[in-house]
Amino acid sequence: MNNSPIGSQVAEEIIALERAALTRWGRGDPTGYLELCAPDVAYFDPFTARRIDGLEALTAYYQGIKGQISIQRDELLDARVQLLGSDAAVLTFTYVSHGSEGSMRWYASEVFRRTASGFQLIHTHWSLPKAH
Amino acid sequence: MNNSPIGSQVAEEIIALERAALTRWGRGDPTGYLELCAPDVAYFDPFTARRIDGLEALTAYYQGIKGQISIQRDELLDARVQLLGSDAAVLTFTYVSHGSEGSMRWYASEVFRRTASGFQLIHTHWSLPKAH
Repeated sequence: MNNSPIGSQVAEEIIALERAALTRWGRGDPTGYLELCAPDVAYFDPFTARRIDGLEALTAYYQGIKGQISIQRDELLDARVQLLGSDAAVLTFTYVSHGSEGSMRWYASEVFRRTASGFQLIHTHWSLPKAH
Repeated sequence: MNNSPIGSQVAEEIIALERAALTRWGRGDPTGYLELCAPDVAYFDPFTARRIDGLEALTAYYQGIKGQISIQRDELLDARVQLLGSDAAVLTFTYVSHGSEGSMRWYASEVFRRTASGFQLIHTHWSLPKAH
């Protein structure tokens, strides 16, 4: 499906949205992600005590992180976009960040829903795979 | 959206599919999950060296696990289903397993696509959150 011209276009658009949000994130600015999120976003990362539900709760969580992240160099690897009909898509990738906390390797899943104003994130899952 | 009768019905159906696959998994039988998966499934867990792409590759991976898992008791907690139109949905939950390897706590994301023969998994992400 992703080999169709429309599929490729959606994949490129979604990877570009993620890349832009990540670049802002790496400068300590989580606003790029918050602007992408739908009001009903569901969020997992390895440091939360439970899933974060909703943009308001995620905004409060990111508020505590703001300005604390500094990524000098990063890699968005192995990106794959799977389409769910014409109005939704799943992006998965491996992320490697090199920053003030050293290098880290992540798995990431991002589920996007198309709205009148563009794609919105309804689910994010960041995790730390065991070292190999 | 999930408060509509159709939304609730989809949510119940999806949670029941997951619950049934998990029960078989806990008895050392990964076939329940393999039967749920779409041919293009994308799979993350903390022990893989990279994302596993496609049912064939996932079947080979699970072959190495078959019969090795024994979960005495488990809990599927905090299940939430988000709809993506009428033909796709995201299930997120916390999973606690008590088995031969001790107790483990997981975050799980499952993305389902509706097909003529029912819902299929197109993406799975299992992760181990840091202890709190």
